[in-house]
Order: sequence, then C-alpha cells, then structure tokens
Amino acid sequence: MNYAIILAGGKGARFWPLSRETQPKQFLNVCSIRPLIEETIYRISPLIKKEGIYIATGKIHNKKIRGCLKKINIPSGNTLFEPEGKNTFAPIAVLSKRISDLDSDAVIAVLPSDHFIKDNDRFIGLLSKGIKIARNGYIVSLGIPPKRPETGYGYIKVKPQAASRKPQAYKVDAFIEKPGLQKAKRFLKDKRYYWNGGIFIFSPQVILGEIKKFMPRTYKILMQMEDKGDFIRLWHKLPCISIDYALMEKTRLMALLPADCGWTDLGSWEAIGEIAKKDKDGNIFRGKHIDIGSKNTLVWSDKRLIATLGLDNVVIVDTPDALLVCRKDMSQDVKKVVQLLKEKNYRVEI
Amino acid sequence: MNYAIILAGGKGARFWPLSRETQPKQFLNVCSIRPLIEETIYRISPLIKKEGIYIATGKIHNKKIRGCLKKINIPSGNTLFEPEGKNTFAPIAVLSKRISDLDSDAVIAVLPSDHFIKDNDRFIGLLSKGIKIARNGYIVSLGIPPKRPETGYGYIKVKPQAASRKPQAYKVDAFIEKPGLQKAKRFLKDKRYYWNGGIFIFSPQVILGEIKKFMPRTYKILMQMEDKGDFIRLWHKLPCISIDYALMEKTRLMALLPADCGWTDLGSWEAIGEIAKKDKDGNIFRGKHIDIGSKNTLVWSDKRLIATLGLDNVVIVDTPDALLVCRKDMSQDVKKVVQLLKEKNYRVEI
Repeated sequence: MNYAIILAGGKGARFWPLSRETQPKQFLNVCSIRPLIEETIYRISPLIKKEGIYIATGKIHNKKIRGCLKKINIPSGNTLFEPEGKNTFAPIAVLSKRISDLDSDAVIAVLPSDHFIKDNDRFIGLLSKGIKIARNGYIVSLGIPPKRPETGYGYIKVKPQAASRKPQAYKVDAFIEKPGLQKAKRFLKDKRYYWNGGIFIFSPQVILGEIKKFMPRTYKILMQMEDKGDFIRLWHKLPCISIDYALMEKTRLMALLPADCGWTDLGSWEAIGEIAKKDKDGNIFRGKHIDIGSKNTLVWSDKRLIATLGLDNVVIVDTPDALLVCRKDMSQDVKKVVQLLKEKNYRVEI
Repeated sequence: MNYAIILAGGKGARFWPLSRETQPKQFLNVCSIRPLIEETIYRISPLIKKEGIYIATGKIHNKKIRGCLKKINIPSGNTLFEPEGKNTFAPIAVLSKRISDLDSDAVIAVLPSDHFIKDNDRFIGLLSKGIKIARNGYIVSLGIPPKRPETGYGYIKVKPQAASRKPQAYKVDAFIEKPGLQKAKRFLKDKRYYWNGGIFIFSPQVILGEIKKFMPRTYKILMQMEDKGDFIRLWHKLPCISIDYALMEKTRLMALLPADCGWTDLGSWEAIGEIAKKDKDGNIFRGKHIDIGSKNTLVWSDKRLIATLGLDNVVIVDTPDALLVCRKDMSQDVKKVVQLLKEKNYRVEI
C-alpha cells in the first residue's frame, strides 16, 4: 500500500504576523479556501488512502490537527505528536518504522505540509512514477527545475546516468547546501542541478536499511521504540538533524525525478508573489484597500482599510493586534522580527 | 488694542488618517500635549488679550471650538462659523470689518491655526515689531527665510529698500506662487526671497481701504453685513479666494519682516520630521514598535504593535479603523487618497 508522512511541525515564523506559533502557516489558508495542510492531504488523495496518511507535528497543534483530521476522516492514531521538535529525520524515521511494522509492502511519500503546487494532476503523475521507482529500491527525490538563482534552497546535482529510463529518473551525484549567489547563477544555467523540494519517496525497508548502515546507534534506538511507555525517553535520544544531512547526502540509493509541476515553497511573504495574481504594476492587494501609484507591493489586510501611496517593493500584513511593514526582498528576515519580539518580551502573540 | 484672527477652517486632509474631516489637524496634539489651535492661542497670549482673539472655522467644528474656547476663556461670540468654506479672504475681511466697528485703533494679526513655531519668545518679539510697523499703515507679512528648495509654498520677493529701519522690514516686490524645483533652488540662494508663512499684521482700516480700492463690489457687500439676519445670504456673495490672490499680491502697502523663529507648516507627515526627534538612522517611532534596519522612516502608531523591516523613506500612520503606508516624499499626496476615498465611497471616516 502507499503511505504518506506529512511534516507539519514548522513554526512558519516568516509568515508573522499572519502566522503565530499556535497558528503556523500550514494551518492558514494562504492561497486557497483550505489550509495548506488540508490542501496537501487532498492533493495526494488519488494515490494514498486516508488510513495511509500519517502526520508529524508538535504537541501544541493537538487541537488543530485533531479538528483537521476529523474533517478529512483520517484515523486520529495516525498523528505523531513530537515530544520535542527534532527537525525532519526523527519523525520520518519513527513513522517509517511504524509503517514498516504494519505493512511489509509499503511505499512512503514524505511531504512538507506548507508547499503550494499549481499543477496537481502532474504532481500526482510524478508521485505515481516516484512510487514505481521506489519499489525498485531507490530513495526518490522530486527535483524542482530551478527558476531563478535562489540562495535560500538546497540543490541536488544529478549524474548523467539514468536511474530508470521510463519514467526517467537520474542517479544523484551530490546534495548541495544553500549556495551563494554566484554559485546559484551557475546552477541555474547547468541542467544537472535541481532544487531540493523536500519531497522523498521510499520503501520503509530501504530507509531503515540506510539508517542501520549510516546511523547504527540511532537504528538501535528506533528498534526499541515499540515499547510505547518508553517512547518519550527514547525520542529525546534521537538526533536533532534533517533527513538531508542524516541520510540523503550519504545514501547511494538516491534517484531524482525532475518535477515541473508549479512547485512553490511558501517560505516567506515574497513567495506569495509567485502564486497570487498581480495587477499590471506587480501589486497584490487583498482586503479593504486603496492605492495610488504603488508597484511590486503586497498588501494583506484584515478588516481595516489600508491606504498605500507611492510604495515600491513593500509587504504590508495587517492583523487585529500586529502590523508588519517590510521591504519585500527582506521578507525572509521576518523571523528575526519574531526573534526580537521574543527577546524584548512584547505583549503580542508570536 | 491688539487683535488676532486665527484661521481654523482647514480640513487637514494631508494628515489623514490621524486627521479626519471632523477632527482636522488644528484639533490634534501633533507636536505637544495641546492641540495646535490651543498652542496658537497660548503663543500669542503675551501680546493679545483673550477678548481680542477671533477664530474663523467651519460649522462642523462648532462643538470642538466651543470646548476649546471655554477652556481658554475666550468669549464665545468671538467665533465666526463660516456658513460655507470660502478660502482665507472672506473670513479675514468679515472679521476685520467686525473688529474695525468695535475699535478704531485696532491692529490685527492673522494666524493660521496649524503651524508649529519652535522659538515662541522670538516669535512674540517679531509680532510686537510687526504691530508697530502695521501702526504706520503697512500690511506686514512675516517672511520665513527658506531652508530648502520647497516647491509647496508661495514665496515673497522683497525690494532692497527698507519699509522700516528699526525694526528692519522690507518693501515687497512680488508674491510668487508655488515655484518649480529649478526656480525654488534659485530662490534659496537669493537673499531677496522668503517663504510666505501666511501670517499678516495690519490695521483693519488699512485692509478695508485696500478692499475698497481693489474689490469695490465686495467692499459694498461687507458694509451691508452688519445686518445679522442677512449675514448668510451676503456670505454666499463673497468671493471664494485666498487673501494672497485677492489683496496681498496687489497692495503696495506690504512690508516684509524676516522671521527666523523655527517656523514649520505642518502641511504633511513629512513635516513632522522637521520638528520631532530622530534616531541616528533618521527614524521617528511613536507608539508600540519594533524595527530592524529601517531608515528615514516615520511610524505613528496607535495601540497595535507595528513591526518594520528594512524600510527607507516610508511613513506609516496607524489608527483603529484605517492605516496609511506612504512614500515619505509623497506625503503631500495623502489628500489625493482622501479624495479617492470620497469618490469610491469607502465606509471609513475621511
């Protein structure tokens, strides 16, 4: 059977003040009438049954997740409430082990809960191909063809040899961390480089085998985790590391499937500009709003009237208790604002 | 006796959304704990008795003005509620006639209600000198030495001859309308040019004589206006014109007294920058606020937290029902926003 692990532990600090720690972006309906996490679940439903969908998230989101799962009819036992945030390796490893125990014939797709995908049909086609390749023992990564010299993403470099001919997938040469601008420009021209979209497909036996190979002590902890009473103690022993660093960079079983399906990582307010409709001056205005002569500006308004005049390259996000006004190309730094609010102990929810 | 006519009919649209039609800037405490109109009255109190202070304003401000006058102890009969906004000539002419009927020895100072003056003592000294010169039959204008090539003000050009030696005042050569930038730059270098601050001092006989000379039909209407029952009908017959266009540009009795007293026309949000204290990056932050890396930015916040990030040359004004975000050097155009709100019939007070 096909399974999914949906990673929904993100804090979404870069979408403050719309997102808050108790309401991160995966629970916001940023680009449709449904929250991003529901979009993610609906997106894969043609290939993955509800009972095969597992969600990893923080305890803080207990209520929200339960409400969401009830609506969509996913078994409440399919949620892993991480006792402590441990990056992506730990939840993927634990849930892979759990699925492996249930179904020796499983294939798992790992999906972030906060990505936007424009062409769902194409994505489903790719996922289906990825599942086939994964059944041949590969760890499949969906590789996004770069659209700009992005310095905020990791890259994956492929080898000229195919891992599979039909559907075409490539063997992977290297995982590359967020590059500088010069490197990113070079990657954009070179057809061998893809963005790492964080979407992986594998069978649990393969991934557990790789954990055993590269992280034998962690593998032992995982094997002990059946005993539920001991789960929290053992969780704290797992390394806090991303799946990329822990395994994907090391394994030789990686295959990359090029995925041109309108993928957008909603990593910051600037990314909204990639998916929302703009007016002729490059503006996106949402809510009660009036403008004279602004360009490339994003206004996200709640209830109040917002008037803008002569702005360029600005993001405005208005909520009942907090307002953000930010240079658009610095919107990645909104997380620094959230950090500062924490430090200064402001009486506003972060 | 000395009298003052305080012009308080302005709409202050350029201070929207802090100012509204029912709450224009003269009633706001923009730069002190008192509203601007009260500041104006207190400023002149060393020279002008309360019973000599007359205020011209719109009917809409009836309640506000009565409250203000009661607090300051000005006779309630000293207010002219203009039946219809008519620019500055009509209220000055009507009140000059009224004062003239009361006191044949009067001298009147005309003062806008929404200017900021840093050096009150110096201003009082200048006003006192102006009154002396006005007693010699001159219409005295306080001329502000230009500080920048401002294109938003009118200019007054003086002749080399003195109108009076001690205190020194100049005869006036010409009134110049708002110039283009090239002209304004030339004016800044040429010592003969002053900003027209809209502050005039004259005896009512002199001004009425000039009205009789240049506007004989209007003079006749003014003379009929004693009959109170007929006041509104006659008011509508008065021309809607500024005192500058109507008289000051034409009269040969004009004398200019240079006035270096820290005068600021609070004409727009940008002007706040001239009087408020800035941080080392040129920012002015008022209210609950957090910033990373902004420059030359003004944040005027109400109750909500405002976070700014990487802004340059931006004005943010936050009120409970409306928010303005504006390029600072376009803050003169805020009145266009107000106009647009009127046209689009937005459900927000303008």
